[in-house]
Amino acid sequence: MIERLAVIGVGLIGGSVALALREAGMVKEVVGCGRSLENLQKAQSLGIIDHFTHEVSIAVQGADMVLLAVPLGAMRATLQALHGHLSKGAVVTDAGSVKGSVIDDVKAVFAGMPDFFVPGHPIAGTEQSGAEAAFSSLYQNRRVILTPMPETADEAVRRVKQMWCQCGAEVTRMTVAHHDEILAATSHLPHMLAFSLVDSLARLKENDEIFRYAAGGFRDFTRIASSNPVMWRDICLANQQALSAMLTRFADELHLLAATLEKGDGEGLLTIFERAKKARDRYIDGVQ
Amino acid sequence: MIERLAVIGVGLIGGSVALALREAGMVKEVVGCGRSLENLQKAQSLGIIDHFTHEVSIAVQGADMVLLAVPLGAMRATLQALHGHLSKGAVVTDAGSVKGSVIDDVKAVFAGMPDFFVPGHPIAGTEQSGAEAAFSSLYQNRRVILTPMPETADEAVRRVKQMWCQCGAEVTRMTVAHHDEILAATSHLPHMLAFSLVDSLARLKENDEIFRYAAGGFRDFTRIASSNPVMWRDICLANQQALSAMLTRFADELHLLAATLEKGDGEGLLTIFERAKKARDRYIDGVQ
Repeated sequence: MIERLAVIGVGLIGGSVALALREAGMVKEVVGCGRSLENLQKAQSLGIIDHFTHEVSIAVQGADMVLLAVPLGAMRATLQALHGHLSKGAVVTDAGSVKGSVIDDVKAVFAGMPDFFVPGHPIAGTEQSGAEAAFSSLYQNRRVILTPMPETADEAVRRVKQMWCQCGAEVTRMTVAHHDEILAATSHLPHMLAFSLVDSLARLKENDEIFRYAAGGFRDFTRIASSNPVMWRDICLANQQALSAMLTRFADELHLLAATLEKGDGEGLLTIFERAKKARDRYIDGVQ
Repeated sequence: MIERLAVIGVGLIGGSVALALREAGMVKEVVGCGRSLENLQKAQSLGIIDHFTHEVSIAVQGADMVLLAVPLGAMRATLQALHGHLSKGAVVTDAGSVKGSVIDDVKAVFAGMPDFFVPGHPIAGTEQSGAEAAFSSLYQNRRVILTPMPETADEAVRRVKQMWCQCGAEVTRMTVAHHDEILAATSHLPHMLAFSLVDSLARLKENDEIFRYAAGGFRDFTRIASSNPVMWRDICLANQQALSAMLTRFADELHLLAATLEKGDGEGLLTIFERAKKARDRYIDGVQ
């Protein structure tokens, strides 16, 4: 049972944790913290948080669990604001999509890795944002990856794992570098492609007409291009190394694919398409 | 009213036309034609077609409307099979995703463009295929593009347009080259990207793990990679010129994006992401 949960950043991610824990009866009190008064009032009226403050230093006072659900670009300033204000025995975790950059921020602010910080990342979300987008079942049967460091206390990991399990998630552990590579492949690269494709078409002269003739496949394919641009800028910059390597490799593959097409190599195309369909169908079977 | 409709290729596309026309009471008799006995029997038992044959030459006899809903790679052989067997006054149209290649096939088989052939393309579909996937509302509020040639008779265009309107679609006209460019951008390129991304990840050593950590965004983004590989090989080859130009340009853009990321240019990333989100949100508003 969490006595007092401080949710820093009451959006889709943070708000849904609060709702899920409330529904499970696993949290007594939730303090919300953020910059937008409107969003915090909304969160309070929706029963996501009990009360709120704009001050991180106040929000974390007396909290036994602190969840940092702010954009990656705001992580360091948030850590600076809570430094020195945590209660004894408090555990701090985050929900950032890149783990290397969060750990860099933590180390910089605390002059080393404190034992109470558990880096985490729930693999869940929609293209929506804000407290209004939060819902209690967001983490049901979703995976949460924790990337504890050698300095992290086992007890802190246990409590964060328990929190996510109570939200309905399945918790796994991996190294920071491995997490950041896997997420570059399955999430960050697809977002870059979707943003880039839509932007590329939008810049064509006849763009209105082009979008008018786009069908359902295009809508699904580009859904993630409706995600929050600031959040994704932060994620891309935070995972710069793994992502730019992945992006360059993929661009090279597209050049090869264009060459395959140009020489009319139907067998070559079919091999790629069949391998892809097989992998996707297997993957879909695997997760449903 | 269509007296006898011959549907050559009774899959998602052809089967859904038959179902929609039946539901609207706008067709008296539907003859199905295809290679798979199992699929044709299924189509008959589902009430999509009245009877069937494996012979194109027999299927088109007595038909006043012939719909070619076969993969692009089978178009020329299908045209050869029906040549000389059409009834007087019959109109022939197709549902191919590329129009230039179909017109080449028609010209090659008929030694010129006949006045009864109306090249067409319904912008609709799912990643499913076969008669079982057909449903009568597939074309409701979808667009159908006709690309009539100077030789095409106005009366033939009128009858094909009427058929699609009776299926619930909105019919527009454009030139062949324009159609093939727009479809390269909004459909063929996204399919290439989805196939290529999934294949690229599937070839990584740790591919099982990668797919395990993919979230909903990845599922949507890659849905079209579950499409029929043979059909898409044919489409890519048929639209080789427009598509390979588009693919090369996009690969170049990805290299630029990787460079933007490598130099940590957050402003540059944000500009792209914001422009994309704006375009996608506007487009979604526009079609909903």
